[in-house]
Amino acid sequence: MTSEFAFIEALRAIATDPAARGLDDDAAVIEIGGERLVLTMDTMVDSVHFLPDDPPADVAWKLVAVNVSDLAAKGAEPLGCLFSHALGEDGWDTAFLAGLKAAAEHFAIPLLGGDTVRMPEGAPRSFSLTALGRGPRDCPVPSRSGAQPGDRVWVSGTIGDSGLGLAVLNGTLKSDAVVPEHARWLGERYRRPAPVPALGMALASMVNAMMDISDGLLVDARRMADASAARIVLGLESVPLSRALRETSGQDRAARLAAVTAGDDYCLLFTAPPERTARIRELAAGLGCEVNAVGIVVKGDGLTLMHDDQPVPLPDRLGYQH
Amino acid sequence: MTSEFAFIEALRAIATDPAARGLDDDAAVIEIGGERLVLTMDTMVDSVHFLPDDPPADVAWKLVAVNVSDLAAKGAEPLGCLFSHALGEDGWDTAFLAGLKAAAEHFAIPLLGGDTVRMPEGAPRSFSLTALGRGPRDCPVPSRSGAQPGDRVWVSGTIGDSGLGLAVLNGTLKSDAVVPEHARWLGERYRRPAPVPALGMALASMVNAMMDISDGLLVDARRMADASAARIVLGLESVPLSRALRETSGQDRAARLAAVTAGDDYCLLFTAPPERTARIRELAAGLGCEVNAVGIVVKGDGLTLMHDDQPVPLPDRLGYQH
Repeated sequence: MTSEFAFIEALRAIATDPAARGLDDDAAVIEIGGERLVLTMDTMVDSVHFLPDDPPADVAWKLVAVNVSDLAAKGAEPLGCLFSHALGEDGWDTAFLAGLKAAAEHFAIPLLGGDTVRMPEGAPRSFSLTALGRGPRDCPVPSRSGAQPGDRVWVSGTIGDSGLGLAVLNGTLKSDAVVPEHARWLGERYRRPAPVPALGMALASMVNAMMDISDGLLVDARRMADASAARIVLGLESVPLSRALRETSGQDRAARLAAVTAGDDYCLLFTAPPERTARIRELAAGLGCEVNAVGIVVKGDGLTLMHDDQPVPLPDRLGYQH
Repeated sequence: MTSEFAFIEALRAIATDPAARGLDDDAAVIEIGGERLVLTMDTMVDSVHFLPDDPPADVAWKLVAVNVSDLAAKGAEPLGCLFSHALGEDGWDTAFLAGLKAAAEHFAIPLLGGDTVRMPEGAPRSFSLTALGRGPRDCPVPSRSGAQPGDRVWVSGTIGDSGLGLAVLNGTLKSDAVVPEHARWLGERYRRPAPVPALGMALASMVNAMMDISDGLLVDARRMADASAARIVLGLESVPLSRALRETSGQDRAARLAAVTAGDDYCLLFTAPPERTARIRELAAGLGCEVNAVGIVVKGDGLTLMHDDQPVPLPDRLGYQH
């Protein structure tokens, strides 16, 4: 079986156009008519990225949301999407479409076209979506490779909710270990991630680097550090945790480590010079979004984890790794 | 099982943005920065759109070609593509990538990004590609709905080669019924379709309607007639047949009916006022392409088939119908 890493290395040798950004970023950026078009494509496979008994409307929502999250990370305004659908059973497909419609409306990303295919009998189905966005006009399109020593490292939203939501949904976390209100809220965070393109658009001119957190804060921060040829130092105590997570898991080191290695946050991870701190808080507050400084960029390479000024060994598993 | 027709009807209710063109066309068209961006997405599924023992490089070529064909039909210059790959066995994936690279170079459509996923063990794999093109600047982007009574109906290339090539490859046509040189050439037409974007770009300002022929000339001509609320009358005797096809199948009515109902031509089907005939021939000749007038558009609806001025009943099967 081809390793994903080896395959992407081979793809890189083909994708030599500058618009491909060396396949290192979450999206391609092409210039057309004086505008920057940001493009991203994600595929979700039955029994890999979702479970056969997941509500179909949530599967559709997530397919849209993960792509919108990539647009948000590039500071791009959603323009539209194309969607490839593998036909299945009637009721499932109808519910899926309802979720697709809800997400397209929520994220203001009109459905423009795509393809519909029939899979062989019994085959796991897969769904692909390509999202297009209009990149920022008066600043570069943020990449994950621009983090500079001296920058602060920020995250939007709260971290780890989606991972805990999955634990609630799949029964890893026993139902008597979480109050029903939190169980619902956490499950919703897993099933209906809600990236905020307006926040990415507002931050684009403030940041030196930006990406979305899709596989876990630690693994994505290390990817940003690697791409930027700098070291990122994160303070576990600064990682923002939701009330639902705190009241379910607590907020000790174990709970924090679980949160920062859980995937599917679809929050923003970005770095910016410290003098922009007030303006960043102001922009986020204006959009009703939470942002928190969780670390710094220094010279060097890799990722360093601290907790209350004490170094913490990196866990073996930094997140969902391909 | 959801019918594709019903599903697309339901999708249409969601895809209300004008850029989606009511999902009636082969591509979406969005305006950005004073340019028109043409977008199309096609998916190919193992054992549905290709066979497990098809050469992987040809599968990749075809995935690019079918999308480029849609761009050509909109008169669009290829700008780039995004590609979603389902990982499989190492040697297969390596050969697939070689075909992808060859096609991207042949069609001058750089690979810009995409996604790589792992399917569950034993699952048929599927591959999606989104192609982007720059639409014509000084004329409308051709649609399939613009055919006008009085227009001539044209096709590019020769019709039916790919269908006959498939018959050669899958053994439906016995090997002693075709000379080896023709067998090779016809097989290549099936495995490596070669749409010509430059021809579509040159014709865009000449045509009233244009689409690609992917499912068979008859079924696609009827789709154009339906979309245009006009009747298309085709003359079987005018349909251009390659030497390989003529010397294999002959050119009687049965051979012609087989050719016009075979899929995978990836030629252009277009209509234009008769006074543009000389200019159309000149433009095509300048690109080394063959174009032939094969019918006329009249008032009414549907498709009428003639052969040497005699009406011919439409066959039950007009092509590959979803």
